[in-house]
Amino acid sequence: MTLHHELLGKAIEALRARTFFAAYPEHPAPAIYGETADADGQAKFKATLGKRFTELKQTGETAWAGQEESPYLQQPLNISYPVFTTEVLISKSKTAFNEWRKTPKDDRASILLESLERIKKRFFEIAYATMHTTGQGYMMAFQASGPHAADRALEAIAAGYEELSRIPGAALWDKPMGKFTIQLNKEWRAVPKGISVVIGCSTFPTWNSVTGIYGSLITGNPVIVKPHPGAILPIAIFVAEIQNVLAEHKLDPNTCQLAVDTFDNMITKELAEHEAVKLIDFTGNSAFGSYLEALPGKIVFTEKTGVNSVILDSAEDIDKVAANLAFSVNLYSSQMCTAPQNFFIPESGIKTPTGVVTFDQFAEKFVANINSLVDNPKAGPFVLGAVQNKKTCERVEAAENLQGKVWLKSRTFENPMFKQARVATPVVVEVDSSKKEIFSKELFGPIALLIKTKSTNESIALAQELASKHGAISCGAYTTDSVVREKIADEMALAATPVSFNLTGSIYMNQNAAFSDFHVTGGNPSGNASFTNAEYVTKRFTWVGHREPVKA
Amino acid sequence: MTLHHELLGKAIEALRARTFFAAYPEHPAPAIYGETADADGQAKFKATLGKRFTELKQTGETAWAGQEESPYLQQPLNISYPVFTTEVLISKSKTAFNEWRKTPKDDRASILLESLERIKKRFFEIAYATMHTTGQGYMMAFQASGPHAADRALEAIAAGYEELSRIPGAALWDKPMGKFTIQLNKEWRAVPKGISVVIGCSTFPTWNSVTGIYGSLITGNPVIVKPHPGAILPIAIFVAEIQNVLAEHKLDPNTCQLAVDTFDNMITKELAEHEAVKLIDFTGNSAFGSYLEALPGKIVFTEKTGVNSVILDSAEDIDKVAANLAFSVNLYSSQMCTAPQNFFIPESGIKTPTGVVTFDQFAEKFVANINSLVDNPKAGPFVLGAVQNKKTCERVEAAENLQGKVWLKSRTFENPMFKQARVATPVVVEVDSSKKEIFSKELFGPIALLIKTKSTNESIALAQELASKHGAISCGAYTTDSVVREKIADEMALAATPVSFNLTGSIYMNQNAAFSDFHVTGGNPSGNASFTNAEYVTKRFTWVGHREPVKA
Repeated sequence: MTLHHELLGKAIEALRARTFFAAYPEHPAPAIYGETADADGQAKFKATLGKRFTELKQTGETAWAGQEESPYLQQPLNISYPVFTTEVLISKSKTAFNEWRKTPKDDRASILLESLERIKKRFFEIAYATMHTTGQGYMMAFQASGPHAADRALEAIAAGYEELSRIPGAALWDKPMGKFTIQLNKEWRAVPKGISVVIGCSTFPTWNSVTGIYGSLITGNPVIVKPHPGAILPIAIFVAEIQNVLAEHKLDPNTCQLAVDTFDNMITKELAEHEAVKLIDFTGNSAFGSYLEALPGKIVFTEKTGVNSVILDSAEDIDKVAANLAFSVNLYSSQMCTAPQNFFIPESGIKTPTGVVTFDQFAEKFVANINSLVDNPKAGPFVLGAVQNKKTCERVEAAENLQGKVWLKSRTFENPMFKQARVATPVVVEVDSSKKEIFSKELFGPIALLIKTKSTNESIALAQELASKHGAISCGAYTTDSVVREKIADEMALAATPVSFNLTGSIYMNQNAAFSDFHVTGGNPSGNASFTNAEYVTKRFTWVGHREPVKA
Repeated sequence: MTLHHELLGKAIEALRARTFFAAYPEHPAPAIYGETADADGQAKFKATLGKRFTELKQTGETAWAGQEESPYLQQPLNISYPVFTTEVLISKSKTAFNEWRKTPKDDRASILLESLERIKKRFFEIAYATMHTTGQGYMMAFQASGPHAADRALEAIAAGYEELSRIPGAALWDKPMGKFTIQLNKEWRAVPKGISVVIGCSTFPTWNSVTGIYGSLITGNPVIVKPHPGAILPIAIFVAEIQNVLAEHKLDPNTCQLAVDTFDNMITKELAEHEAVKLIDFTGNSAFGSYLEALPGKIVFTEKTGVNSVILDSAEDIDKVAANLAFSVNLYSSQMCTAPQNFFIPESGIKTPTGVVTFDQFAEKFVANINSLVDNPKAGPFVLGAVQNKKTCERVEAAENLQGKVWLKSRTFENPMFKQARVATPVVVEVDSSKKEIFSKELFGPIALLIKTKSTNESIALAQELASKHGAISCGAYTTDSVVREKIADEMALAATPVSFNLTGSIYMNQNAAFSDFHVTGGNPSGNASFTNAEYVTKRFTWVGHREPVKA
């Protein structure tokens, strides 16, 4: 078995340096992926519709089922997947465990890297599968579910490989005792925790799941992937390719199983509570995440909800700021965990080199930029995409009844390719800083609150309090004052929230780069997923050291 | 401030290589510590008795109290310590936090290393304080509370320093975008979790506490040390010296506070449950440890109880085996968390090059070796020490009523230096392997159970099951068969239990070396203290990354 040494080495190096690195090109360019790659991928996706997904190597299913619906077509995909009982899944996982944990880490790495190379050939198919389950626009669906997910998976493999290599396999321990020495041969084993269950979400079915899958697999744990019933196909393709590589190496394909369920018969709790399950990765709502975190005897990694803030104090060019933030709230209709929700603006306005921009002036600019993007037929529909869940649309409608001035109502628009798409543009509401009950919870979807504060100090205090109490995954801040900058950096760091300062142009606070940006590092209630720092992989195994005297 | 670069560098190197390293000599030799060091230490200890302990730099006490008693004299020490309310402790800790977290890691390391150098000068005083609170023999009291504890503290400093250094402080992130690049300045901060409470135990008041204290301090957290009311003085000396160094560097001495309480008014729960407390280190009983682990919103490190096994299959020299194990159960009257309790012996006996040694023959040898050590006036009293807690003596007495043949009754002996010492020699009881209810719990103290199994396979299965279900911190195994050896190594590794194979001579399964042996790495119910792997320190802080475009 050949280890993809060079790639792994580069990934480990990037992870250490935290500089830019990407193994999988993010542009769906024909020059990179081939002239027919896009059309082939689309055709393959279409051929999957209305059929059984037969690519898995799992056996013993009790039924075939699937309830995915396209947010673009508002019609079921009619793909069905094999359904297994929890006992069958666990039993097969137990069997696979004993083989996989004894597979050397170099072989595990080699197999997992190979699976990513296979998946790379299916990025376009995965992109269409992602569009028609999550509602993401084409570009995001390609990037987030394909190359960015693969990079994040590679990152987890690299982190796992590095951590497994940190302690020597063996060492001679030679203790001087005066006239003699005590010599012990010591050896250390990285013992995997056991069965790992990775619970997917409906908006980022691969990006949020592959880190847990690859993080658990590289460290020797068998994985059961439980996708969201609304977004199965993208991750099913990942699992199928992992199983293919396992089978080719004569290893048990049940080392990584897909556990599909349906909205009317969810097996997540049954799986999570099973005594044989030791590791749980979860992305989704806070209530379920907190329930999982409280399960005794489990190691749980969560990405739950967060209330993301933008602190506006001062700026070089307020128009560029408004444009950048308008893009951030339009992007995938604010269905990203990193999307901004609360915009804190002092009642005295935002300082700029050409004078103060008042609260109202900024609100106008922000609204104008949102409208301008939405109304650009070459950009709007593709940036906004579609709305995954009907309930998000209801929440957006309800936001217009919040106590405060509605600066912009949500509306629909026509997607030239999908007339039936479920869409909603951002609603923008002004809220006074005293109305904390309104803005201290996540309002998932395209809902932006412009919050008038007494001062930037109040803005910072509120952003910190919300992050500490209710969680936050991202934060944006605009200031040209170095003292204010450090105050924001320090206070938000205490709330474990990464701050993007003064972003303008084509980089957005929603974005999160593998090998460089930590993601949900565990210091606030939004979760402890920790893509990817040492803990994210070290918690998946236990070091055990044995020792024995050297024979004379 | 000069960093003790060389020492720290050596410690980090040893930690990586896991080879032998000791910064603090374990022998209380005059040639090392000075001709009068022992006498001076003893005099200083005696001068402390019956007085207020006025070395701390804490103010605002509500009373002076102390209830320590010497197990050797069975008399109170009459030392009193300042007592503070939880609110005062928390409030001072909060203030100290903001200064300490901003103190650069090199300065923190320097201060902590300096404190260990000071403490080194007080090893003998700490040794006597340890003897007269824990009942440990002189040699163990010196080693465990002095050099071994200091080495373990240094190890925690080294691990913390290394982890804080793993992510660069800043990096240029330069992403090619075709015709241009996006350049971000990124910076990462290691943000300490917050107030750390370290809860001590009565048997190893410094060894089990310094890792948490130094692990939390190096990573920027203020610490409140809550000693066991029965064993305060040894750790009070550590805290006093840490405060001295802090004060000399014009830093708040409340960065590390001592929180003394009394048996009738314990403040542990109040402290642990306080919302400002983020980190808890605990050594003690399983019930309290599990209560702490279940507290929401806390990072908890525990060392709870374990049921330690010895698996006897075959041996080169059974007499050496019996002698080694007899020493292990006599050492500090089996009041170590690593002391063996359950000895699994196949009914077919133990294979040796000179023929099978039957169960009964081994039991006789074991008992003979225990007696021979106990009855050696130059060794016995010093190896056994005294019994810390009256209840341990009651448990030993009760063990004679267990269902099984009593091979050896517990008895007392005379300590030539302390006629009033509370002592108890090991009781040895034969138990059938079917009587699981007897041996599946920790029987703390000098209680050894010889368990007759059907075969070595049953011995291994039982040892694994006990470790998995009830926890285990150590395991001994004797086998000359490489297949059996690997089976034991594999099965016990799955139960996260380190195995000492075939120990004879002057090294014992109870012993645990800093920089090399992991301790309670978290894979079984005995706890997750994890001295010292990466998790032990990385869980004490959160990485937060900020970013900002490079200015054109």
